[in-house]
Amino acid sequence: MTDELLAGYPVVVDIPVAWGDMDYFRHVNNIVFFRYFESARIEYLERIGFRELTDEGSVGPILASTGCRFRRPLTWPDTVAVGARVTEVGEDRFSMSYRLVSRKLGEVAAEGDGVLVSFDYAAQRKVPLPERVRRAIELLQGQ
Amino acid sequence: MTDELLAGYPVVVDIPVAWGDMDYFRHVNNIVFFRYFESARIEYLERIGFRELTDEGSVGPILASTGCRFRRPLTWPDTVAVGARVTEVGEDRFSMSYRLVSRKLGEVAAEGDGVLVSFDYAAQRKVPLPERVRRAIELLQGQ
Amino acid sequence: MTDELLAGYPVVVDIPVAWGDMDYFRHVNNIVFFRYFESARIEYLERIGFRELTDEGSVGPILASTGCRFRRPLTWPDTVAVGARVTEVGEDRFSMSYRLVSRKLGEVAAEGDGVLVSFDYAAQRKVPLPERVRRAIELLQGQ
Amino acid sequence: MTDELLAGYPVVVDIPVAWGDMDYFRHVNNIVFFRYFESARIEYLERIGFRELTDEGSVGPILASTGCRFRRPLTWPDTVAVGARVTEVGEDRFSMSYRLVSRKLGEVAAEGDGVLVSFDYAAQRKVPLPERVRRAIELLQGQ
Repeated sequence: MTDELLAGYPVVVDIPVAWGDMDYFRHVNNIVFFRYFESARIEYLERIGFRELTDEGSVGPILASTGCRFRRPLTWPDTVAVGARVTEVGEDRFSMSYRLVSRKLGEVAAEGDGVLVSFDYAAQRKVPLPERVRRAIELLQGQ
Repeated sequence: MTDELLAGYPVVVDIPVAWGDMDYFRHVNNIVFFRYFESARIEYLERIGFRELTDEGSVGPILASTGCRFRRPLTWPDTVAVGARVTEVGEDRFSMSYRLVSRKLGEVAAEGDGVLVSFDYAAQRKVPLPERVRRAIELLQGQ
Repeated sequence: MTDELLAGYPVVVDIPVAWGDMDYFRHVNNIVFFRYFESARIEYLERIGFRELTDEGSVGPILASTGCRFRRPLTWPDTVAVGARVTEVGEDRFSMSYRLVSRKLGEVAAEGDGVLVSFDYAAQRKVPLPERVRRAIELLQGQ
Repeated sequence: MTDELLAGYPVVVDIPVAWGDMDYFRHVNNIVFFRYFESARIEYLERIGFRELTDEGSVGPILASTGCRFRRPLTWPDTVAVGARVTEVGEDRFSMSYRLVSRKLGEVAAEGDGVLVSFDYAAQRKVPLPERVRRAIELLQGQ
């Protein structure tokens, strides 16, 4: 079930919900969903070799925006499976989509998105997406 | 400066940036911005008497979606001023806009938004926004 | 290796380190170790049927104190195995010991402890540890 | 009232409790107390010029252990005043004591402690506490 819901997401990470992720309303707090998305994003960036400052010129990704649409409340105990995929690649940026599935419910609990910009940390400005990163995304998405 | 940037936001909360809010990149982590927005949102809900389950029928707000556009990285030490305002009121929901200003930089560090749905927790379904909440929003925004 | 280090701990939970758990010093932040301990503690409480308010009289555990001795810095990526055991049972309280092992390093990264008091939330005072909880601890520790 | 409770603490920081700091039990979660202590500790380290790697040899403090005794549950809304003081200075380490006062309650909500070791991050070993740091502590505590 969960696998079908995450078809098309080349990167999927499993994360156990912590009891302490729940807030006053006794559901997982909204900001924790962004932590879950971040874990999937970082894994994706690792897979395309674009996680942080590279040796070839201090170019790395910077998160420009992100959002979440909440579908179902989450409660402990549960394990979430979070999928990440790239939906669009531009000159100096790319867009990601996240899908968070509750393994306990077998249902989508949230959908998210994010825009990552290629940034030269030394020069402090946007730069074109490195060609090898572009190819790594194509390769990973083409699987 | 900060005050001008937050004109039109009837609710503004001041929050000191914690050293521990910074992550591996030595900037305030992206999920912390949503905690800042949440603090402003809760204060707004408190001001319109719609923070949680009311005594009159278990109706309260539920966060349906939220997003953030990052403008400037934040670093400790700093204090952020976070403004919240309602931008649109619908039959069973309303939209909020957040603006986060760094007092150290005197600049907008992030803009956010959220949609809150009026929810009957007992019946587990959306319900029309209580009339007194609608009036409280008008009153607060009209200031 | 990890298993040997956790011999004697009847409850062990595995938790993946999140990238976002790291702070400015590029190690997992100190407060996150307490979240890891909490996850092991809650699992232990669940196993002895003493997690929260019972139906039989609103008696549950309350954390009176906790501490941590840091042995090795943790970094992402890693998975921690966190063991919990009860070291002493008193009239109205019991002491727990936690051991946190880095699966990547195969070494103890931290040792922790905590004291939990049996509390009547309705009467707002300490009460003797329920007999069935005492027996459940003996049973679990005796394994 | 709060001021009397914090007499003898040369560093005191004020921190607003965030709604999101509360957990399932509707009290501020235990790990958040350590974040509050950390904020007071970092401020103290800043005041004695020992916050992080110095330019004179990569020597900085490392947290060896920390603990907390919980006295009163905290709830939002509130502001905590957190005092930090050094209680003992050794050859290569010093001990700190924290006191957390709820401004709403006018009472001590928690007491904490920590041991900081003087560490040469380049050589990866303990080193004697720099003399100027020792003097800065004496000066700050002598106030």
